[in-house]
Amino acid sequence: MREFVIFSRIGKTNAHWKNLHDAGRLDIVHECIVASLFLSHGIRKNVVFHAVLNGPPNPPLHLKICGEKLHNVRTDQQTWTQILKKVLSRKQHPGINVSKTSFEALIRIKAQNSQIYVLEENGKDINQIQIAENPVFILGDHVGLPKKVETFALRFGQKVSLGKKPYLAAACITILNYILDRKK
Amino acid sequence: MREFVIFSRIGKTNAHWKNLHDAGRLDIVHECIVASLFLSHGIRKNVVFHAVLNGPPNPPLHLKICGEKLHNVRTDQQTWTQILKKVLSRKQHPGINVSKTSFEALIRIKAQNSQIYVLEENGKDINQIQIAENPVFILGDHVGLPKKVETFALRFGQKVSLGKKPYLAAACITILNYILDRKK
Repeated sequence: MREFVIFSRIGKTNAHWKNLHDAGRLDIVHECIVASLFLSHGIRKNVVFHAVLNGPPNPPLHLKICGEKLHNVRTDQQTWTQILKKVLSRKQHPGINVSKTSFEALIRIKAQNSQIYVLEENGKDINQIQIAENPVFILGDHVGLPKKVETFALRFGQKVSLGKKPYLAAACITILNYILDRKK
Repeated sequence: MREFVIFSRIGKTNAHWKNLHDAGRLDIVHECIVASLFLSHGIRKNVVFHAVLNGPPNPPLHLKICGEKLHNVRTDQQTWTQILKKVLSRKQHPGINVSKTSFEALIRIKAQNSQIYVLEENGKDINQIQIAENPVFILGDHVGLPKKVETFALRFGQKVSLGKKPYLAAACITILNYILDRKK
């Protein structure tokens, strides 16, 4: 099992928006969902994706997507616009749960059974660490993790880096999935 | 310099469409553009991206995007819906050229000065080859390269593989960029 957690500073916490970009950059959350869970013509059953949305009007909202149970999905933005509108209206979709869990509460729970890694450009090189079983990776959105949130996460985890390039959040996830795939 | 070429079987060759997905999966071309050219808050100046669109009504169309000259862009789908509509109407955008060059003609030109690599799951492991300077990587869309096109490309290049997982086209590009970044 591998898990990815994205902290979305401004992701809208209701379904009253016209498109993912204007919904507090839920387009980035969509890209991260695809990078986490999708292969060509298949879903990664061993991945759990989390987004904690901290935008108006009702933060925080914890979106949890389990690859094992997810179906009726494609990768495209139209599909995910519909799915995210649905679950943000508190309707059901297979494999997706929405709750009021905060980022801090989620990290505390995860840290009980998993090694937490916080993605930071100035962290320890990913190629120089032994990634634990069932790792949990924490990422920020396009602005990065707020300082307080990062400090909190680092009480439970360690900083890791993919190198000197500042990759997009979804690219970080794609690269992490690749690195983990190659370790098997 | 590094170049990526995506062969799009059905990508529309005019601007008469409502959204990227329904335009012969130009959403995949968009994802590949982002994976090729974008870092967080920056553009890769050393990347050239090519898409050869083979959909109706006027195939082939060669779209060439130079990171060095590209500006006025963001990563999101709205931005690229507008840009692709613009250039497919034969209007100008900085860093983007559209021509009637076919895939075969493009490969012949590229092979004169560059090593061509064709992404295939059953190719030689990327970690076991020495990637040449100024590499050109050929990828298919969500259906993969048509057999004839692949056979043609392999007259000029060699098969390489990212491993056993069938990655999405854009994910392949993200991973290739990462591998090349780490080699420097």
